[in-house]
Amino acid sequence: MSRFLIPGLSALEPYTPGEQPRDRRYIKLNTNESPFPPSQGVIDAVNGQAGLLQLYSDPDSTELTRRLAETYGVEPRQIIATNGSDEVLNFAFLAFADAAHPLAFADITYGFYPVFAALNRIPYRTVPLKEDFSIDPGDYIGTGETVVIANPNAPTGLCLPVSDIERIVASNPDRVVIVDEAYVDFGAESAVRLVDRYDNLLVTGTFSKSRSMAGARLGFGIGSPALIADLHTVRCSTNPYNVNRMTAAAGVAALEDAGYFRRNCRIIEQNRGELTRELRALGFAVPDSKANFVFARTGRIGGRQLYLELKKRGILVRHFEKERIRDYNRITIGTAEQMQTLVRTIKQILEEQA
Amino acid sequence: MSRFLIPGLSALEPYTPGEQPRDRRYIKLNTNESPFPPSQGVIDAVNGQAGLLQLYSDPDSTELTRRLAETYGVEPRQIIATNGSDEVLNFAFLAFADAAHPLAFADITYGFYPVFAALNRIPYRTVPLKEDFSIDPGDYIGTGETVVIANPNAPTGLCLPVSDIERIVASNPDRVVIVDEAYVDFGAESAVRLVDRYDNLLVTGTFSKSRSMAGARLGFGIGSPALIADLHTVRCSTNPYNVNRMTAAAGVAALEDAGYFRRNCRIIEQNRGELTRELRALGFAVPDSKANFVFARTGRIGGRQLYLELKKRGILVRHFEKERIRDYNRITIGTAEQMQTLVRTIKQILEEQA
Repeated sequence: MSRFLIPGLSALEPYTPGEQPRDRRYIKLNTNESPFPPSQGVIDAVNGQAGLLQLYSDPDSTELTRRLAETYGVEPRQIIATNGSDEVLNFAFLAFADAAHPLAFADITYGFYPVFAALNRIPYRTVPLKEDFSIDPGDYIGTGETVVIANPNAPTGLCLPVSDIERIVASNPDRVVIVDEAYVDFGAESAVRLVDRYDNLLVTGTFSKSRSMAGARLGFGIGSPALIADLHTVRCSTNPYNVNRMTAAAGVAALEDAGYFRRNCRIIEQNRGELTRELRALGFAVPDSKANFVFARTGRIGGRQLYLELKKRGILVRHFEKERIRDYNRITIGTAEQMQTLVRTIKQILEEQA
Repeated sequence: MSRFLIPGLSALEPYTPGEQPRDRRYIKLNTNESPFPPSQGVIDAVNGQAGLLQLYSDPDSTELTRRLAETYGVEPRQIIATNGSDEVLNFAFLAFADAAHPLAFADITYGFYPVFAALNRIPYRTVPLKEDFSIDPGDYIGTGETVVIANPNAPTGLCLPVSDIERIVASNPDRVVIVDEAYVDFGAESAVRLVDRYDNLLVTGTFSKSRSMAGARLGFGIGSPALIADLHTVRCSTNPYNVNRMTAAAGVAALEDAGYFRRNCRIIEQNRGELTRELRALGFAVPDSKANFVFARTGRIGGRQLYLELKKRGILVRHFEKERIRDYNRITIGTAEQMQTLVRTIKQILEEQA
């Protein structure tokens, strides 16, 4: 810390992204990336922009916004595109919460929410998940707080039915409810169909997972026109050219190639089902995930120890040294072959332990 | 504005980027883009990343940071890479200024500074430029404020000698001085050589102008390790993967192809000299620009009227409807051919006026 940092930020603890070690090649199951490359259309779109980089990107992301609106059945003025969905989440925290309008989110959820809150100096209440890691919608009904729900939740993979989301949104008409749907495309139901009925609902999404574009950084928000206009005001007060040319073009192409990405999602769902069965057969507790990862624990080996043993053998998973979940690991769903290697390796580790 | 926007932001007026009309093809001299495409190395680097977009970018931008450090003769821990230089400026405002540590910057300068200040709710003092639009260093000596200086300044193109920058930095040892060098590569002198001597100096730069990468969004900050560490804390509390894969690779390639970009800068300086002479011959007042634009006014036609007449004829320049400078237009330096077309068109307009 320098002696110049303002006191308001001196206690800031940044988010720790999943490790990206360079010492060897790993089977990378730690950051919920897709095991599949982007479609040929996306690759072509990127290549088509490389020779035009001297020109600024479109600060309105007009074409991308139009295609997103079409895809999600809303109007363009209900869409904002951002440099990853972290950006739209940060904008929303900044725009819609302050000391007088505090936040509420789960104790076990995306680890960035408390960081955004601290950065923007917003008080927050963490709401304990139930014993089985499910969300009790009752905890958020009519509390008058700015609510943030990851649905499916991370790192658990568990889903709240949209009917429960709707109850929460309807019960807090004067505060914004943010539903973070980073993982919705792997079998969960989206709350986007509610945005026309509730002007206080913001749904966020990303191209990082189901559309194989984590390295391109593209996220978006969908909500009522007034709410989205506020987010654009913040965006244009921060970084009007927030989405670069290559990423904007890649996003348009990814929406055009929806079939390719949908097929990949179905493969990931299949592999998830298979991995869940295998892990349960080995004695793991594995909640029913609707995301591109599973969350797993066994009494046969500690969470951190399993993570370390897997890493030693060239497989990276994500372990959180955090209360309630330190027995678990979050494992990204990869190809069928990667999953077989993982299961084989876990079996070896457990046998060596025994 | 929605009814959910927090009161602290209700008066926020976002920055207005230069217009990007789509009604026809223009000679675009309004956003200080390079008239030259990026180097072949940059194009190849982008293409090499397109098939890897399913993987997150390196949150530390390790390779890019190393190359930037080499290029500028500092250590990697003195470098931060960002999604355009607007991002590093916003981070710096957020990290190093607050109500107790207000800002000071010129009345005529980059229009984003008051917006960043408003967004982060930081009070600021605007310091009038002298009559000839030059900065009086005395205005910033020992004031104890967080100082922001664009050098060369925009939209004037005028430069402060680094010796004057040093006096300002040395006189405010307990506050950060931010020197925004977006336009430094067109003949001005950089303050980077001072960063090892003054831990309160932050120099920011961009790949948008001299490196033909406006559409890729890449900026950076250079300062003391502690100061840069603070900016990384803010970055990782906002968007740890702020620089996407394609842009990071393009940045590395641009630094490798330094010769190509240096030649382009020299051509732009030549064209700037030629345009300045031609405009002065037509009776324009044109301050001595060290940037890739000139700032010009004539008593023969109003600033806004000249802007409109040029636009009608397919040439876009930037007019600011702002006190002290509404008689001026900011004209980006393009190719020699574009400059000839511009001068010919201005002559026609002036003749038609007469």
